[in-house]
Amino acid sequence: MKTPGHTVIFQPSGARGEIKDGTTILEASRRVGADIEGLCGGKGTCGKCRVKIEEGFFPKYRVNSSVEAAETFGRTNAKFLSRTQRKNNYRMACHTRVRGDIVVFVPEESRQAQQVIRKEATRRRIRLNPAVKRYTVALAAATLQDSLGDLERLQAELGRRFKLKDLTIDYAALLDLQGTVRQGEWKVTASVWKGKEIIDVAPGELPGGYGLAVDIGTTTVAGYLCDLTTGEVVATHAIMNPQVAYGEDVMSRITYAVREKDGLKRLHGAIIKGINEVAGRAAAKAGIRRADIIDMTAVGNTCMHHIFLNIDPNYLGRTPFPPALHHSLDIKARDLGLRIAPGAYLHVLPIEAGFVGADNVGVLIAEEPYKQDEMALIIDIGTNGELILGNRQKLLSTSCATGPAFEGAEIRHGMRAAPGAIEKLWIEPGSREVRFKVIGNDRWNTEVKNIGARGICGSGIFDAAAQMFLAGIIDRSGRFNPRLKSDRLRRTDDGPEFVIARAGETSVGHDIVVCQKDIRAIQLAKGAMYSGAKIMMNRLGIEKIDRVILAGAFGSYIDKESAAVIGLFPDCDPANVIAVGNAAGDGARIALLNVAKRKEADVMARRVEYVELTIAPEFSQTFTRAMIFPHQEDKFPHLKHLLPKER
Amino acid sequence: MKTPGHTVIFQPSGARGEIKDGTTILEASRRVGADIEGLCGGKGTCGKCRVKIEEGFFPKYRVNSSVEAAETFGRTNAKFLSRTQRKNNYRMACHTRVRGDIVVFVPEESRQAQQVIRKEATRRRIRLNPAVKRYTVALAAATLQDSLGDLERLQAELGRRFKLKDLTIDYAALLDLQGTVRQGEWKVTASVWKGKEIIDVAPGELPGGYGLAVDIGTTTVAGYLCDLTTGEVVATHAIMNPQVAYGEDVMSRITYAVREKDGLKRLHGAIIKGINEVAGRAAAKAGIRRADIIDMTAVGNTCMHHIFLNIDPNYLGRTPFPPALHHSLDIKARDLGLRIAPGAYLHVLPIEAGFVGADNVGVLIAEEPYKQDEMALIIDIGTNGELILGNRQKLLSTSCATGPAFEGAEIRHGMRAAPGAIEKLWIEPGSREVRFKVIGNDRWNTEVKNIGARGICGSGIFDAAAQMFLAGIIDRSGRFNPRLKSDRLRRTDDGPEFVIARAGETSVGHDIVVCQKDIRAIQLAKGAMYSGAKIMMNRLGIEKIDRVILAGAFGSYIDKESAAVIGLFPDCDPANVIAVGNAAGDGARIALLNVAKRKEADVMARRVEYVELTIAPEFSQTFTRAMIFPHQEDKFPHLKHLLPKER
Repeated sequence: MKTPGHTVIFQPSGARGEIKDGTTILEASRRVGADIEGLCGGKGTCGKCRVKIEEGFFPKYRVNSSVEAAETFGRTNAKFLSRTQRKNNYRMACHTRVRGDIVVFVPEESRQAQQVIRKEATRRRIRLNPAVKRYTVALAAATLQDSLGDLERLQAELGRRFKLKDLTIDYAALLDLQGTVRQGEWKVTASVWKGKEIIDVAPGELPGGYGLAVDIGTTTVAGYLCDLTTGEVVATHAIMNPQVAYGEDVMSRITYAVREKDGLKRLHGAIIKGINEVAGRAAAKAGIRRADIIDMTAVGNTCMHHIFLNIDPNYLGRTPFPPALHHSLDIKARDLGLRIAPGAYLHVLPIEAGFVGADNVGVLIAEEPYKQDEMALIIDIGTNGELILGNRQKLLSTSCATGPAFEGAEIRHGMRAAPGAIEKLWIEPGSREVRFKVIGNDRWNTEVKNIGARGICGSGIFDAAAQMFLAGIIDRSGRFNPRLKSDRLRRTDDGPEFVIARAGETSVGHDIVVCQKDIRAIQLAKGAMYSGAKIMMNRLGIEKIDRVILAGAFGSYIDKESAAVIGLFPDCDPANVIAVGNAAGDGARIALLNVAKRKEADVMARRVEYVELTIAPEFSQTFTRAMIFPHQEDKFPHLKHLLPKER
Repeated sequence: MKTPGHTVIFQPSGARGEIKDGTTILEASRRVGADIEGLCGGKGTCGKCRVKIEEGFFPKYRVNSSVEAAETFGRTNAKFLSRTQRKNNYRMACHTRVRGDIVVFVPEESRQAQQVIRKEATRRRIRLNPAVKRYTVALAAATLQDSLGDLERLQAELGRRFKLKDLTIDYAALLDLQGTVRQGEWKVTASVWKGKEIIDVAPGELPGGYGLAVDIGTTTVAGYLCDLTTGEVVATHAIMNPQVAYGEDVMSRITYAVREKDGLKRLHGAIIKGINEVAGRAAAKAGIRRADIIDMTAVGNTCMHHIFLNIDPNYLGRTPFPPALHHSLDIKARDLGLRIAPGAYLHVLPIEAGFVGADNVGVLIAEEPYKQDEMALIIDIGTNGELILGNRQKLLSTSCATGPAFEGAEIRHGMRAAPGAIEKLWIEPGSREVRFKVIGNDRWNTEVKNIGARGICGSGIFDAAAQMFLAGIIDRSGRFNPRLKSDRLRRTDDGPEFVIARAGETSVGHDIVVCQKDIRAIQLAKGAMYSGAKIMMNRLGIEKIDRVILAGAFGSYIDKESAAVIGLFPDCDPANVIAVGNAAGDGARIALLNVAKRKEADVMARRVEYVELTIAPEFSQTFTRAMIFPHQEDKFPHLKHLLPKER
């Protein structure tokens, strides 16, 4: 007798297959190539494989009869899932068996991550209303009796057919107008910016053209090439910011620009070259010409913004840190040396304050906290930390110097998120054995002998701190437990250290460790973020946050639970902690595709009130308390089941 | 007994002196350094020294008692002056004696000309309303509590103090904004274009800035540097159009641009380099920096206009000759590589039709025939001839291929108006001796032995044709008189020729002659102009012209009488034939200083109706008749006293 199969579909990947009755969902996901995370290898101890059973496939609403808890249901599912979550059909994939046709939704945090440059475009619904639209018109040929200029002929026809009045023309578009008109046999397609200016004319009838949204990060530069008529992202290309050669963080770039001869020129030249590369590669991937890119938007922190515009960032680095400009800016892309359509504009989003830049404005218009009642805390973790707190009543923002710890810098064995970096780890509570995964390898260190680890990147460091705390290796104050016995815990002249990867698991030939100094760096960084949030909460007179939005590519790849456990932000229902990916890049894309959002960005950027932390009287005390894991005094009702009982 | 002296003042030069009683006005002018023309050396035969006695200096209205006709008054003054002119106190300077204190006005045509590049700015009253205005503001310094961007600070203050709203900023002006603000200790001067855009910001308080009006001729490029607050021309600089190296006339330039590899690029590069030289030299003369030139206007014929803008002139050379654009154009000067203030705009005036360019529009807004009732014929004689006929009712325009004869080209001993060129000549009716003047020499050939003549320039050729006709050397049809005996008249294998300068009077060592072919070239050129006017008169149904306006530098230096005698234009009262100098350049200057005239130019350029001569059915016959001196059929009542009795 053949065991009957069930149809299992995984969302959002769409992976599907016939699965034998009684298989666990985690096992099923491996069979069909879906990508559910499982740090503990299915033992029911890591709590990473949370999924949602969307529906019994047929008939509807038969979830309970389509899946069956494995024998450990009571223990495993209860340990990692709240009552509400269980009611809403969340299950641990490793301890739930398939008993009928089901659709399984895999939340983002339960998916396996593979990308090294982690700036994919997020799917968002965007109302289409681009700044540049294309119009095709047929013109009457010139005769001796009617020898009107070609431009006037085009203007008249665009006015007649599309009610476009008082159009000017960009100089670049004018240059070969006559040749273009004749090449198209008097039929041409004009690209018109904001209904005001003809920025491009091409022969014949053309589709709607493309736009490039660029997110200029301190470390990464990402470009999203979009079809302006469908809104679709047709190609993405990301590179390391070539300015990294001149300094890792914002302050070192400012110093370079100010102190070195031609410093600004070099930094500016590097980013322009980089963006031209991004534009060229994205165009090549999509099979279009650079000249088909007829609009461009850009976001970046204030320093990246200024250097990109070739504006001396000198004053950004000196109190009172005034930027050259706040408003959004429309300039010709060619004036910066950007190689897209010669007549195209570049729209640079506005900035909020000295250290809260256009990238944060991008997050703002993507997340729209100003349209909601709930109190949202938006955390953008990049090389600098930027925070927004508020709702439709009021919005505050601040920035905090997190230091480079989250990027893997100033950490003994820290490294960038590159192949060989430990990006995820889990410490078995009893044995204190470490399971980890490195970028560029699909398998776990428990599955292969030499897994080729080279160091730990930011998300791995988050996990390490949280897991070491939960496993009792360090205490709330970050101090190593002096009583703990483990061959992974060593005392050295520089203080204690904990071995994450043994030399045999690495490609560097030595143990990879987390030391006391690393933990202190994490504490400083997370303490800065927490106290930023806390001071803003004081200003608004609120005690509770309804929603935490983790923006930035980094925010998508850190473990939300690890972040909560170490106290990156005040207590919040885990269901309401959402990673939204590169929301800054999304903001650039939204502004590219919907011109109305550009105005909204200008209005909202001005409405956000900037809180200068360093001059807040409570800063020092708040910061000290926030260095404790997860916090010295604050309660974390949503973490009660996880945190050590000693509290 | 000492003869009493009289105070004599010459206008407009202002030259003055005490003159012995009984001295002729011509002689007096030489004593005090005023510049009255006198081709015949005071014999009373050339009629060039016509002046107006403005007033008896003291008491007023005592003209008749302050001057006294010399013994030849009756003959000389009656010969060259109409009754009305005499009534209006016109006198021949050579045959009028000073008998009291007088002010003598020397009309332009009676003045001696010295300039080689003849594009001085004409004095005109221009209403001041420049496109770019400067505003000085003091800003509040940034603080931690008020860290608004520098730009927003500037915008707010300009709005508050000067009601300038929604100002944008040019990218170039933004670049060093922060440095400028601090250099000026928070006081800056902003240059604002059309109340819309900040194009320049300079530290501290500055005067109103300068603008450059450029007239791009086929042969000459002239720049007028104007103070935008006073309207004054502070410096003028003119050069040969460097494109001359690639072809003498418009058609040869088009051919070069179309046929040669990089032809357009070279022509465009040459004119940009030339204009940058003009800007730099003019700025140096005025003692200002290039960056103080914050606005620029340009005129030129359609071909010069297109090449200046780097637009392929290909289609201008082929029927139906449509231009790339008609309208005026505002573009950033830097987009053309023009080195003035980096944020400055260039305003290029509109063009009328394929061959009636922005230079003619400059003439139009300078002369404003559309505001007058009298019927005006405006003749712009450059390398191409352009004509406007009309009044406030209606305006027609046309262009005619005059060929290069007026520029001295395709003439046996023709040359440009350069040192050594015979620019003016007069043939003694009886002896047929020739008196002439060369550029670069103050004296006449009758006064010095070797006067250094090298050839004949355009104005000399006009005079030669007219004088040879009046002296009976050629007849109405342009044919040399076969019966004439003169050692200056020679028969050669190429036909007859007339010696203007004998070898000993030249620096080229051979006789300078005018031959039959030269006369034919003049006839073709003047016939084209005359028939253009004639066909437009037919279109308007008029028989009489009230006023002839000679525009263009050339028009100022030709002898109006010579022009009338050969029949450059239909009959008109000589008093109403006016040379207005470089009216095209004046138009550029007017548009520079008064932004309202830019709009007027766009409107008027569109109102002018272009008459395409080559498709007019009567063209061929009209042209043939117009080749005759002064015309085959038309009557010239105003020339009756001059023309040979045979008519």
